[in-house]
Amino acid sequence: MSSISERSLEKHYEWNGKIEVITRCDIESREDLSLAYTPGVAQPCLEIQKDIDKSYALTRRSNLVAVITDGTAVLGLGDIGPEAGMPVMEGKCALFKKFADVDAFPLCIKSKDTDEIVRTVYLLSGSFGGINLEDISAPRCFEIESRLKEICDIPVFHDDQHGTAIVVAAALINALKVVGKDIDKIKVVINGAGAAGLSIGRHLLNMGVKNLVMADRFGIIYSGKPENNHAQEEMSQITNPDGERGNLADALVGADVFIGVSAPNTVSAEMISTMATDPIVFPMANPTPEISRDEALRGGARIVGTGRSDYPNQINNVLAFPGIFRGALDCRASCINEEMKIATSYALASLVSENELCEEYIIPNALDARVAHAVAEAVIRAAKKTGVARI
Amino acid sequence: MSSISERSLEKHYEWNGKIEVITRCDIESREDLSLAYTPGVAQPCLEIQKDIDKSYALTRRSNLVAVITDGTAVLGLGDIGPEAGMPVMEGKCALFKKFADVDAFPLCIKSKDTDEIVRTVYLLSGSFGGINLEDISAPRCFEIESRLKEICDIPVFHDDQHGTAIVVAAALINALKVVGKDIDKIKVVINGAGAAGLSIGRHLLNMGVKNLVMADRFGIIYSGKPENNHAQEEMSQITNPDGERGNLADALVGADVFIGVSAPNTVSAEMISTMATDPIVFPMANPTPEISRDEALRGGARIVGTGRSDYPNQINNVLAFPGIFRGALDCRASCINEEMKIATSYALASLVSENELCEEYIIPNALDARVAHAVAEAVIRAAKKTGVARI
Repeated sequence: MSSISERSLEKHYEWNGKIEVITRCDIESREDLSLAYTPGVAQPCLEIQKDIDKSYALTRRSNLVAVITDGTAVLGLGDIGPEAGMPVMEGKCALFKKFADVDAFPLCIKSKDTDEIVRTVYLLSGSFGGINLEDISAPRCFEIESRLKEICDIPVFHDDQHGTAIVVAAALINALKVVGKDIDKIKVVINGAGAAGLSIGRHLLNMGVKNLVMADRFGIIYSGKPENNHAQEEMSQITNPDGERGNLADALVGADVFIGVSAPNTVSAEMISTMATDPIVFPMANPTPEISRDEALRGGARIVGTGRSDYPNQINNVLAFPGIFRGALDCRASCINEEMKIATSYALASLVSENELCEEYIIPNALDARVAHAVAEAVIRAAKKTGVARI
Repeated sequence: MSSISERSLEKHYEWNGKIEVITRCDIESREDLSLAYTPGVAQPCLEIQKDIDKSYALTRRSNLVAVITDGTAVLGLGDIGPEAGMPVMEGKCALFKKFADVDAFPLCIKSKDTDEIVRTVYLLSGSFGGINLEDISAPRCFEIESRLKEICDIPVFHDDQHGTAIVVAAALINALKVVGKDIDKIKVVINGAGAAGLSIGRHLLNMGVKNLVMADRFGIIYSGKPENNHAQEEMSQITNPDGERGNLADALVGADVFIGVSAPNTVSAEMISTMATDPIVFPMANPTPEISRDEALRGGARIVGTGRSDYPNQINNVLAFPGIFRGALDCRASCINEEMKIATSYALASLVSENELCEEYIIPNALDARVAHAVAEAVIRAAKKTGVARI
């Protein structure tokens, strides 16, 4: 049997695109033409001119999200160029539609310049109800997202950061229930301090983690470390409360949780064995994790979650983004704020009932049809509570 | 019965968008997920990285056109803003799909700055197989199109210019057959010297018209006229061979053809009566033409064509753009050149058989299902002949 890669390539040739743009109106008669196009179409145009909010009712905007990349950090492949990132963007769009009936459209930008990317996305923002940024390399992605959030009046969400963070946190909530530990008393080590790692870190701090140590290929991150970029230096000031130094192995000694968003095979069973009792281990490098599930268990891990679909506890951000945008669109949220993200983590965790909860089932299955709806409801509640829902 | 405007508005609320983005791949199982998305999707990404041309086979690019506006010249409504232009853009996308199975996606740009619009469209050009510019005001539209044609490696086509020109020329070819006149011996007067008027003029010159006089609200356009903008001055040097001056009424004396892309009720029956024998009159201001069909006939017009669907001879650019892009996409043309436009005019004209041809039927019906295919075939032949077809 051929490999996943070979079969995927074959399928992609067969699909000739994973998305398609279809029409929602009949055009069979002259009357149809004059209603959907000229001269009738002038009237909805004039209504929107009077009140731009009407664009949500009179065009597809209320259900439409742009999935935008510059192709600089595609999967684990790195900077492969805008066009080459498009199969991932189309895949994302297909998942948006499948899981949450969100119309999503993929766009790649032929520039790596932060100012230019921000300006381009802003100039297009009147065409969409939301913006999903994707596979843009760190640290540019932080500035691009934060500037866009300031200037756009629609939600802007960098999924590689927040989607992953939200789903990791959901898995952690349930894992902590299994091992009977409290979130404010654990030590968490995150290896990888790019877009995903930093965002996971911030999200866990927002959710109550007190002792968080971040590391990357240069070892433990501490304040003032010469290798720190701006975002890492900022993070170093609110993490590593004991001023730890050293390498990842040093950080893991006595840790309750390991989260990897780094590189294959960077953690050994021996390192796991130095962790606190009942280690929770989420090695999420994809497709080859920081440590295999079997090795992690051999090292004493009690709970293991990975990015892979062929093992239990797949930590997959498809659990988050469709429902988050479904909710944000449905209440016409002006942004996706921290409260909405936290609400999503708890909503995801709550879908695993107490009866079912165990070491091998801490997070819903990626194909669980309940997920997007539950997430959307939680997002809408949080948006209303924080005053960012506009309808 | 309510007016077209009221019914159209009602329908637009009902549709909630005239386009929709759907998925072309199944996502029912873990296996499906791993083929359409991670980890399988890495392979098509890598193939495109090696050879960007593969983006046509492995993503939707080969069938995808962007319909882009800045909202500055929407229908006859003028500068109503980017969001307010979107119902027209969506309508256009619906027609692309309906008539030629082209996936078209609407985008509005929140800027009126020429440089910024050019840059934005260029930066997105890797996401599409073609660019249809729409409802961008003159004279900015000329520079925007010509600069984009230079820097993009996909076809860029400003439909308000060329679509209209192509269909007018098709109608004229057949009208001249009816009245038995030769294209190189007629005098043509065009009123309106914006995007559409200038483009019709250029196209008719390319097709063999020798005596063309252009006019606008300041009267006949001649070389050195103070009111001329850059594009009009350029045009003045290849038109008006007799150096005529005066107003539109002066220009029409002895003319064989009147083409109006200007304003309602600017031509009288008396003016028509001063034209040469068998006047051909295309008053295309929409929805109220320069002169009504009845008035034009009263003035002695032999053939009348308008933009309206409720009279014979509707000169509607929906006859051109779907088939043109179908053809350009199918042969992966690098541009849409003059030869392809001329071929389209002749292909359209040829769909009216000699038996059917008469004063009231010089141009196919907008809903004629043969049109897009015939146009696409002509476009592909012309593209191959001129060496711009890439497959």
